[in-house]
Amino acid sequence: MTNTIDKVAMADLLSIARVMRPLIHHLTNDVVMNDTANMTLFFGGLPVMTAAREEVVEMVQAASALVLNIGTLTPAQVETMLIAGHAANARNIPIILDPVGAGATQLRTDAALRLLRELRIEVLRGNLGEIGAVSGMGGEMRGVESIGSDADPRTLAREAARSFKTVVAITGPRDLISDGQRLYGVDNGHNWLTTLTGTGCMATTAIATCAAVATDALLATTTALAAYGLAAERAAKTAGVHGPGSFKAAFFDQAYTLTSEQLYNHARIVDLSDPTATA
Amino acid sequence: MTNTIDKVAMADLLSIARVMRPLIHHLTNDVVMNDTANMTLFFGGLPVMTAAREEVVEMVQAASALVLNIGTLTPAQVETMLIAGHAANARNIPIILDPVGAGATQLRTDAALRLLRELRIEVLRGNLGEIGAVSGMGGEMRGVESIGSDADPRTLAREAARSFKTVVAITGPRDLISDGQRLYGVDNGHNWLTTLTGTGCMATTAIATCAAVATDALLATTTALAAYGLAAERAAKTAGVHGPGSFKAAFFDQAYTLTSEQLYNHARIVDLSDPTATA
Amino acid sequence: MTNTIDKVAMADLLSIARVMRPLIHHLTNDVVMNDTANMTLFFGGLPVMTAAREEVVEMVQAASALVLNIGTLTPAQVETMLIAGHAANARNIPIILDPVGAGATQLRTDAALRLLRELRIEVLRGNLGEIGAVSGMGGEMRGVESIGSDADPRTLAREAARSFKTVVAITGPRDLISDGQRLYGVDNGHNWLTTLTGTGCMATTAIATCAAVATDALLATTTALAAYGLAAERAAKTAGVHGPGSFKAAFFDQAYTLTSEQLYNHARIVDLSDPTATA
Repeated sequence: MTNTIDKVAMADLLSIARVMRPLIHHLTNDVVMNDTANMTLFFGGLPVMTAAREEVVEMVQAASALVLNIGTLTPAQVETMLIAGHAANARNIPIILDPVGAGATQLRTDAALRLLRELRIEVLRGNLGEIGAVSGMGGEMRGVESIGSDADPRTLAREAARSFKTVVAITGPRDLISDGQRLYGVDNGHNWLTTLTGTGCMATTAIATCAAVATDALLATTTALAAYGLAAERAAKTAGVHGPGSFKAAFFDQAYTLTSEQLYNHARIVDLSDPTATA
Repeated sequence: MTNTIDKVAMADLLSIARVMRPLIHHLTNDVVMNDTANMTLFFGGLPVMTAAREEVVEMVQAASALVLNIGTLTPAQVETMLIAGHAANARNIPIILDPVGAGATQLRTDAALRLLRELRIEVLRGNLGEIGAVSGMGGEMRGVESIGSDADPRTLAREAARSFKTVVAITGPRDLISDGQRLYGVDNGHNWLTTLTGTGCMATTAIATCAAVATDALLATTTALAAYGLAAERAAKTAGVHGPGSFKAAFFDQAYTLTSEQLYNHARIVDLSDPTATA
Repeated sequence: MTNTIDKVAMADLLSIARVMRPLIHHLTNDVVMNDTANMTLFFGGLPVMTAAREEVVEMVQAASALVLNIGTLTPAQVETMLIAGHAANARNIPIILDPVGAGATQLRTDAALRLLRELRIEVLRGNLGEIGAVSGMGGEMRGVESIGSDADPRTLAREAARSFKTVVAITGPRDLISDGQRLYGVDNGHNWLTTLTGTGCMATTAIATCAAVATDALLATTTALAAYGLAAERAAKTAGVHGPGSFKAAFFDQAYTLTSEQLYNHARIVDLSDPTATA
């Protein structure tokens, strides 16, 4: 097990997003909109949450990445996502898909699969159950919460990436990120994240903001998840954090103030690319 | 006036919700979704906020309780609520109805009454004006804020419970909970709650999470409101609470960390079941 | 440059809103609803966020001001805004328009212009790019973020006010407020506001709450923006503010607790009515 990721490139990427301020267009769920808009800002992007079919194509023209999040999907919203997604593909800006609750209902699983089939998705981020469900490898969900998967998470990340020709991120205590060949684990993070709604969705937004300014989606995803997890770690240590409410405020502070140097020094990435390696 | 409620059962219920992690399906308003999803987590439940008619029946199959909240209702949403509600009744999982703004417009009053008529509602929670309005006992509203009711609140709680064959909770400085026979008052709570939007909706969610794991809806409702109010009290005493913003963070901390023992020791319940009693 | 605004009237207005508790009806975007509802409460108003075409007219009958915010508009929502707006005009309650993202897409620019043309708007509040775009004076937007305008901001505020026969507020490091004749600058505020989503929308809500109880819309707008900015300044100085998360909680605290006396003493208003004056 060697850490082959380029940490200098990771640190640079965090800075670049904050300088370039990419516009991140979200078609997302109603529960987390405020939090994901804020997380976009903290990572350096500019959020826009347009939902109208009549303007998504025009908005995509100005955007540097497109987030598709099916957390409160309707069939009409999926059509809008396809319209926006085709425009994003035509412009070659990355699409980041969050298949919230795939596996919980047929509508969600079908919507996620349709988006994966009809669009070129750059990054697919979900929990173990969601990625298991869309991959047909037995993900189990209770609502939007992962109950687990029969598959080994590392195999799942790699196989899903190969199958969908995309970068796959399975977030959890150890985040797993693969492009089908390479496989990284990110050990940054904190358990407080599990006490709040929308922390997966916010991670997706962080990925989109990094992917918007990167050429290597695997690097962008790993950078975003390490930075996101590190901000949570740092927040948890803040004086005055006694529960999810104070943690959330401290987490937002840290996500905004996290420096490239801190990321360089404290990102905890393991290279799991060699399938025989253990960590 | 004797305190006849079983405080051991109350304390147990709070623990049970956190162990069982019931899925709470919300059809709710757009203003409070993030807060109510979080409050579900803090009380031990798992939130899902599905709004699509095409998937509510399937989601209800996995749920342990259903919240119907008409805070930003549309006629189409009421139809979806009826579909989800019939599925919930068929599975015998409790439906908790929050008639936000009933009495403020005809659409809201009619929607609340239709849901009460066509579905078997386990708990109806509102403020004095809302419960007065749906009961036809003269509730007065300004928007979603109660201006009051001509009726005596205790009579109103009891009569509404009898009339709708449900548990009724009227929240306010003293919460009143009745199943038509028994009547409890909960004196936990704090005035900071009135400075924030959605605190009534969050109370409804707390009730749903407790009702999802209880057989006695009156006990579940009383437990939830006492725990909710106690968390607010404890938050108000936290160092660094200087207004609604810091209170909200502290309240979330306390709702999540509140123990069964604290609830047992500090729940302030009065038994008002004897109509001749005064308190 | 003389400070001709009546600071006693400003201080009084803040108190009056808190005594009268005007109902503020919002047709607004999905991202900021919770925050704008809360800001309404902090300034003394009662928020209601009704979105259903079937009830907006009835809700307007009880309201003291109407906010129209196109942040996540759809063509159907614009029609609902017109229905609500005509009812508001018929009752002579003020309409406050926030043209979020005007200039970013044709749909938004057209919607803002249509609302301005078909309704009598009391106050139009936007950033420099938005007001430039609706005025046809070259506003540039990236999503909902202003990139700037070719026009001099002071000329723009004055000309837009004249052209639309409304009070115009252009918020930024210095807020500019004009009724076409008078022109005030408000220097209260803090840079932390730019790190959070929805701070423009919340400013609009603060204006609406003041305008609901005032006869002079210019005074109401100036009062609201000075109080809003002053709350931000005071929050920024609070012990424990280390980033956007802790700032937001402190800002909410200060918005709620700000006194008329503090506003009187610390409002920083410059009178720019004389076009030859510099500041």
